[in-house]
Amino acid sequence: MDKTLLFGAAYYPEYLPGERMDEDIDMMMSAGMNVVRIAESTWSTLEPEEGIFNFSYIDRVIEKTEAAGMMVIIGTPTYAVPPWLVKKDPDILVDTKDGRARYGYRQLINLLNHTYRNHAEKMLRKLAAHTADKKNVIGYQIDNEAKHHGNMGKEIQKLFLDYLKQKFITTDRFNDTFGLAYWSNSISSWDDLPDLKGCINGGLMSEFEKFQRSMAADFLKWQADIISDYKRSDQFITNNLGFSWKKFGAPIAHDGYSYGVQRSINFYEASQSLTLAASDIYHPTQDQLTGAEISFGGDVTRSLKDNNYLVMECQAQAFKYWTPYPDQLKLHAFSHLASGALGILYWNWHSIHCGYETYWKGLLSHDLKPNPPYYEACEIGKSWKKLSRKLCGLKKSNKVALIVDNHSMTAFEWFPIDKDLTYNDVVRWMYDSLYEMNIECDVVDINALDISKYKVIITPALYCITEEKLKILNDFVKDGGVLISSFKSFITDEYVKVFSDTQPHHLQECFGINCNQYTYPGTIRILGHPVKYLAELLIPDKAESLAEYEHKYWGNYSGITRHNYGNGVAYYIGCYTDKSVLKDIYKKAFADASIPVSELTWPVTIKNAISADNTQLHFILHYSSEEREFTCPYESAADLISEITYQKGDAIRLKDWDVLILEEKTLPEQ
Amino acid sequence: MDKTLLFGAAYYPEYLPGERMDEDIDMMMSAGMNVVRIAESTWSTLEPEEGIFNFSYIDRVIEKTEAAGMMVIIGTPTYAVPPWLVKKDPDILVDTKDGRARYGYRQLINLLNHTYRNHAEKMLRKLAAHTADKKNVIGYQIDNEAKHHGNMGKEIQKLFLDYLKQKFITTDRFNDTFGLAYWSNSISSWDDLPDLKGCINGGLMSEFEKFQRSMAADFLKWQADIISDYKRSDQFITNNLGFSWKKFGAPIAHDGYSYGVQRSINFYEASQSLTLAASDIYHPTQDQLTGAEISFGGDVTRSLKDNNYLVMECQAQAFKYWTPYPDQLKLHAFSHLASGALGILYWNWHSIHCGYETYWKGLLSHDLKPNPPYYEACEIGKSWKKLSRKLCGLKKSNKVALIVDNHSMTAFEWFPIDKDLTYNDVVRWMYDSLYEMNIECDVVDINALDISKYKVIITPALYCITEEKLKILNDFVKDGGVLISSFKSFITDEYVKVFSDTQPHHLQECFGINCNQYTYPGTIRILGHPVKYLAELLIPDKAESLAEYEHKYWGNYSGITRHNYGNGVAYYIGCYTDKSVLKDIYKKAFADASIPVSELTWPVTIKNAISADNTQLHFILHYSSEEREFTCPYESAADLISEITYQKGDAIRLKDWDVLILEEKTLPEQ
Amino acid sequence: MDKTLLFGAAYYPEYLPGERMDEDIDMMMSAGMNVVRIAESTWSTLEPEEGIFNFSYIDRVIEKTEAAGMMVIIGTPTYAVPPWLVKKDPDILVDTKDGRARYGYRQLINLLNHTYRNHAEKMLRKLAAHTADKKNVIGYQIDNEAKHHGNMGKEIQKLFLDYLKQKFITTDRFNDTFGLAYWSNSISSWDDLPDLKGCINGGLMSEFEKFQRSMAADFLKWQADIISDYKRSDQFITNNLGFSWKKFGAPIAHDGYSYGVQRSINFYEASQSLTLAASDIYHPTQDQLTGAEISFGGDVTRSLKDNNYLVMECQAQAFKYWTPYPDQLKLHAFSHLASGALGILYWNWHSIHCGYETYWKGLLSHDLKPNPPYYEACEIGKSWKKLSRKLCGLKKSNKVALIVDNHSMTAFEWFPIDKDLTYNDVVRWMYDSLYEMNIECDVVDINALDISKYKVIITPALYCITEEKLKILNDFVKDGGVLISSFKSFITDEYVKVFSDTQPHHLQECFGINCNQYTYPGTIRILGHPVKYLAELLIPDKAESLAEYEHKYWGNYSGITRHNYGNGVAYYIGCYTDKSVLKDIYKKAFADASIPVSELTWPVTIKNAISADNTQLHFILHYSSEEREFTCPYESAADLISEITYQKGDAIRLKDWDVLILEEKTLPEQ
Repeated sequence: MDKTLLFGAAYYPEYLPGERMDEDIDMMMSAGMNVVRIAESTWSTLEPEEGIFNFSYIDRVIEKTEAAGMMVIIGTPTYAVPPWLVKKDPDILVDTKDGRARYGYRQLINLLNHTYRNHAEKMLRKLAAHTADKKNVIGYQIDNEAKHHGNMGKEIQKLFLDYLKQKFITTDRFNDTFGLAYWSNSISSWDDLPDLKGCINGGLMSEFEKFQRSMAADFLKWQADIISDYKRSDQFITNNLGFSWKKFGAPIAHDGYSYGVQRSINFYEASQSLTLAASDIYHPTQDQLTGAEISFGGDVTRSLKDNNYLVMECQAQAFKYWTPYPDQLKLHAFSHLASGALGILYWNWHSIHCGYETYWKGLLSHDLKPNPPYYEACEIGKSWKKLSRKLCGLKKSNKVALIVDNHSMTAFEWFPIDKDLTYNDVVRWMYDSLYEMNIECDVVDINALDISKYKVIITPALYCITEEKLKILNDFVKDGGVLISSFKSFITDEYVKVFSDTQPHHLQECFGINCNQYTYPGTIRILGHPVKYLAELLIPDKAESLAEYEHKYWGNYSGITRHNYGNGVAYYIGCYTDKSVLKDIYKKAFADASIPVSELTWPVTIKNAISADNTQLHFILHYSSEEREFTCPYESAADLISEITYQKGDAIRLKDWDVLILEEKTLPEQ
Repeated sequence: MDKTLLFGAAYYPEYLPGERMDEDIDMMMSAGMNVVRIAESTWSTLEPEEGIFNFSYIDRVIEKTEAAGMMVIIGTPTYAVPPWLVKKDPDILVDTKDGRARYGYRQLINLLNHTYRNHAEKMLRKLAAHTADKKNVIGYQIDNEAKHHGNMGKEIQKLFLDYLKQKFITTDRFNDTFGLAYWSNSISSWDDLPDLKGCINGGLMSEFEKFQRSMAADFLKWQADIISDYKRSDQFITNNLGFSWKKFGAPIAHDGYSYGVQRSINFYEASQSLTLAASDIYHPTQDQLTGAEISFGGDVTRSLKDNNYLVMECQAQAFKYWTPYPDQLKLHAFSHLASGALGILYWNWHSIHCGYETYWKGLLSHDLKPNPPYYEACEIGKSWKKLSRKLCGLKKSNKVALIVDNHSMTAFEWFPIDKDLTYNDVVRWMYDSLYEMNIECDVVDINALDISKYKVIITPALYCITEEKLKILNDFVKDGGVLISSFKSFITDEYVKVFSDTQPHHLQECFGINCNQYTYPGTIRILGHPVKYLAELLIPDKAESLAEYEHKYWGNYSGITRHNYGNGVAYYIGCYTDKSVLKDIYKKAFADASIPVSELTWPVTIKNAISADNTQLHFILHYSSEEREFTCPYESAADLISEITYQKGDAIRLKDWDVLILEEKTLPEQ
Repeated sequence: MDKTLLFGAAYYPEYLPGERMDEDIDMMMSAGMNVVRIAESTWSTLEPEEGIFNFSYIDRVIEKTEAAGMMVIIGTPTYAVPPWLVKKDPDILVDTKDGRARYGYRQLINLLNHTYRNHAEKMLRKLAAHTADKKNVIGYQIDNEAKHHGNMGKEIQKLFLDYLKQKFITTDRFNDTFGLAYWSNSISSWDDLPDLKGCINGGLMSEFEKFQRSMAADFLKWQADIISDYKRSDQFITNNLGFSWKKFGAPIAHDGYSYGVQRSINFYEASQSLTLAASDIYHPTQDQLTGAEISFGGDVTRSLKDNNYLVMECQAQAFKYWTPYPDQLKLHAFSHLASGALGILYWNWHSIHCGYETYWKGLLSHDLKPNPPYYEACEIGKSWKKLSRKLCGLKKSNKVALIVDNHSMTAFEWFPIDKDLTYNDVVRWMYDSLYEMNIECDVVDINALDISKYKVIITPALYCITEEKLKILNDFVKDGGVLISSFKSFITDEYVKVFSDTQPHHLQECFGINCNQYTYPGTIRILGHPVKYLAELLIPDKAESLAEYEHKYWGNYSGITRHNYGNGVAYYIGCYTDKSVLKDIYKKAFADASIPVSELTWPVTIKNAISADNTQLHFILHYSSEEREFTCPYESAADLISEITYQKGDAIRLKDWDVLILEEKTLPEQ
């Protein structure tokens, strides 16, 4: 698989009416597809009764795809349990804040339940033993969109209590850490800790959710260890990580898209037991197609292991809001590659005729016939076959890191910045501004940060932070780095206790500011733009104020500051405002960091990478229904798709939703 | 009763403060009223303790009304249970998806509970035995607004399991039918079927709701059989069927109006055990009075038994939004007759001084004195007395059928067209367009369709359909009929499984189109009007395209098509847009069907009927606060109300909210 | 304390990180503060284990404040229970309509639980015994924001049943009183009364909530009796009464402000066991600062005991919407005094670093350093020290009473006027119109009304009323008073049963009108202004119509009437419309009552009072960010703050958010 772009789909022959596997495989082959993922939610098919295993449909898929020269990814079916198993032990259903789940939906499992674990282990061992020696099985996806399922059952609360005892030793330290004296919540005996379902202490509940996330990561590790007893060394282990979903209010499954950091599992922690990172990425299309979600999802997933990754699920038609315009599917596909993907699998091959996701349409519509999206997939397949060797395993080397933290994310659920501004809104505000400027970045979990790789570090609303990390950030600037931090960064310690000195804690020297007041912006403007959600009233005691608030009463305060500190520079952005303001700050900061900023901006998106041939590639991704022309900025470059060569200064014409891959003739600098 | 228009009210002397029955009956008589309905929600009054029956207030009403020459309809009190009965067996309270109901509200009964059935039977037998021989008791209303009450208790789930076993024999067939392999929901033993409260399979849950509806219909049959043991042959059995309610967000009972097809009971199925169809019809008034709900409700209820019907409840004052303008009550009353009603009963006579519906005001306000609505009722009563013989039992003969299906309605709850477009919205969009064009129609349950009666059949979003019905529709067109189908028709089989061939299933030949893509409309327009909610991308391979989508990318697809098929014509309307577009299509279609279309349109509403004297009547109902003039289109006609005669071409003047009943001098064609 | 304005804060040393009590007290002293409230929610700190009491932090506060010459108010910690207590008896958690509460939040206690009462009594006795002899302890706050907590548990339902039996003796009288025959809810045995959680009878449920309120008041009395066993005669007993909260949709605690009448406890009933009235008053600031909530809250609290009161909690910074503009804190402080407050305590001294109210910021921000609000508090403290003797115990003597009734408030929850108009909206509409006209009033519970004190009585939506009170109001007018009643006044008896004669019941003669119809206003206008929510169709059979509805159909009806009755005048306002219309009516009415109306109106607010020196004071409170000038209306007056003297006709200049206290040179009339 190393030198082959993966192009395929999730395939559910067990959901299809009637037998048509040969026809499906023929159609896939015609489309240039080379991989299917199977089995990840079909426990009741694989083990219809306790102990009676039936892998026949898996065998048939493996045999027929092998015959066709295609590859298979095996999903373990643990995220949706069969009725007989729940009947055997109803405690398998997760007990959440809203009470015991009812059987029906997926992802409602108490991952700590022993009956579940026993049966899951049997299934995992059987399935791995049965498939690991199949030549065309290239890897395993363990579980699917793994999460903690809101588990608040007695097992996890017991384990959490053990964890607290071990961590804090005395109830006094525990009470003090989380401020439990407040509203009389403190305890003098560990046994008195009440059921957390009613707990209103945001710090303790954030700690508990961190513990829930670890439980989910541990569950993946447990699966990975079992699979590793069987799999070949050339077979990967991955999960299909699912991003936080932006809801837009349509009912049932037809609702929302991949938006930001996931709250219910820590991707970085989870990916420790994987050998390959993978995620699913869903996003608006038609006039709302911007490429931002593809880029964000790719940067997150690639950064997990600082390596290429797989887009395990992406949309073909999906639901009515996303029926792709002509050329959009192609644009999606190349955009994923441009971020460093090893390939994509559509979810799913066919549309499903019954059940919850009937209208989450696949590449084929319900009539299972060729249709416009299918014909466009055929074009992609053809193109990828041609370019596979060169585009597989692209190398990226970004000098900018955007830091994310799902502990802060949970804390904001308890202490929101604003009812209309979530943590992910801030992350995406800072990320999307980079994206629109054609500045590529890594998106790095705060716990995975290696400052030595970066010239610029950006912290959107990094609310909770340890003293140790603060010191690292301080040293980063002192040693020449550029730090850009937004409002609500560095407010609390790791237990969500607000620091009791003047903000920004530990970094007052670094930023050259202090602040102990903030306000709802009301009519405040900054640099001519309205301020929304929050305005921290910054006093730039040492820093340069880049902009004061435009307001009768708050005009003495700064909203954005810049400070030369040691060999570096620190920017603080104390308020939420128009992205254009943020981009102007970025420009200054990238100048400070000697990072060149392209004159081309979205909707002409540029992604750079080093090809497998060690050539410098520039993906030109045109997110617009208009035609557009731009001037070739490269000395000499050939478009790998059209095979046209451009010289510096040549006019390059972009059709609507166009893709070019410009390969520079000169070798890249190392 | 045969030759008497019924005019009366629900009457609750047991709710009134103090004794005033004589005064009430005097006032009713003065208003020309001739009927009251009593007893339908007063079990605790009729049987205050177990086994202690007290029918004295019923006796008094019967005696006093008989003395006054008035008639009585007896309601059975089964839809609201007394506290002692629930105390005896708390399982009488229905167990729904939201858990066990709490005592207080009406219609929260597990209709399958044995204790309930035993006591209800005793009550029914006592009540029927006590009243059936009373001369002025003209009929029985069994239960009230009968529905399934969301019953998900163990009894109904047990019965449903038996039904599934009998229907599908093997779990494999069951799994396949509903696609239960999806998310691991399939079973290999019937005993493993989980509690349906958590079920997320829309097909299975739609089948279950169909079963719930049948249970409610069976309950009515059970009551009808008991009453039939006692009643005289001249006494009718009816129910007061309640339409789906359109909520508009006011709190408590003051909320919404009769809008469309009822989801919780199938009217057609329920009416099999009734000898007379009846329903309640509530609707906006004041500036929002359009007559559409009166017309829709009437067409539905009349079509149930293809015969005249009773408006068992309609509003006098009701709540503050509906305080009638002068002349509106009169317009309501004649509008009901124009649709074929045998008469109307206000809900209710008096306003109630306590309890949930305190502000659902009756004809009398809380002071129980004559008031403007009462005086207007007196005018109606006087008019009706005069016209009673001629207007009682009007005959209607419509050539257009609009098909409804509450199985499709349930399915759309699982698979909505759009979060802002319900099944009933589509039904009303297609119905109201007919109404505004003065095309009268029957509204027919898909299971009751007799195509031989119609020239035009209209299917709004007929989502689920059997092969048998598809064949009937196909033959209808082939044999010369005109079929008009909207988007989302003929998508799934009767188990809500999407057909796996190209749409429209079975009817591709008939419509001359195919379609396997659809989209959210975004900025699409059609014939200059915005498209909303859904646009199916139609390919008119044989049909004529009546309009293409106006859109950069979807402009190659048709949105509305017309196809000559056999001796008939089939129209397909692939998108939701302005009613004016729909009406233009209707005009073409009625021309195809040789159905004349009046030049007069709403707010001048025309309803045609054959009188008891076999004369042709035209009700002219003026839904406007403006005055208006129109030209008499009939050779020679006399207004039964004003007794003025008009000749063809005469100007006829309409006051605001006016009513005329033009009787043609020439006899109607048969 | 008698001659000292209280100025201080709630103080929670037990919540603070690290020891800083000396520093805090120094800072308070520098700010001129002289009082702290402590201990009201710290049971788990005071009794960390059952029976182990630890009052050391209280002792330290008392000792150190005494040394500094400051005073202490002791709060009893009963409104938030420790975990060990709930573990001992889980039934302590209140059982509400939504089920059993979960431990975590405060105010979730079943106040009738015996275990709770036993332990609370021990705590109260220990705490009182420990502190009553401390010299600088000036009083006790028993419980905090006491309410009934939605208690629907078995104990209260049992007590309520006993109450019903005693009150109604027979079930027949009970059934009749509440109209329980409706929907078959009547009972023939007391034992059959169902759990009220499902009850849908608004009258019975209003009676139950009245009972719940009494239970909460009884609980306060029980506490007061215990404290009285210990306290010195110079120590007061108070509660911190909490107003109904206006929510504006922000999440967590940062939501809403003190708006109107409290539904969950009756202030008047509760204050019977207090020796000093106190409440908390929170309100919008910045551009939304109007002073209306300060004025309303003050008028309510002062009227409870017709005496000066304490503002036990008010905001310093609180949350981001309320960060005060410069000079606003000062304006708040003097506005409270102007209403008759004895002083104010900020909630709270410091911001809290953890827990639910982390962002309900105190006077100090999280860094616990001096900040702009603190420096403004220093100015207040300095000013108050200077003026303390003169401004402490101001006397007010209002001739206008606005009547409130939380029984009507509950009834409206069952029978709303409109989904967008609450009882408190009507109260505030009528109150705020007075406020904006600079007419001062008492806000009096209907049960506390002493008509002899007033010339004008105003009844906003006084829905429920006894015959006895009706007679009092009738006599009030007959004897020369002016009564101004809004729509929805005098509709039902005390059991929420609508009177069965023509409205306004009992007062038809008095108002000279009758009415038995009302409508949603639709497009109605009155005196050129739109009518909203409700229009009662008034027939002024004897009264003068001050305005008819402007509407095609309702134009014959009056919307506002005036009637000379006996020696007085009665105004009826049948609809909701613009405040300007209401103010014009008020002007007429105050002319009738010979009450002078100032030409100055909001945002220049005037509050009058008699000082401790028996001089006439006029507080001039400027609620505006603009500067403004007005002409001195007083013969000769000196501003106590600036010490400038003005003569009649002098121009007085107001800065933004300015305060003047004009003291007239001539003595006031008695």
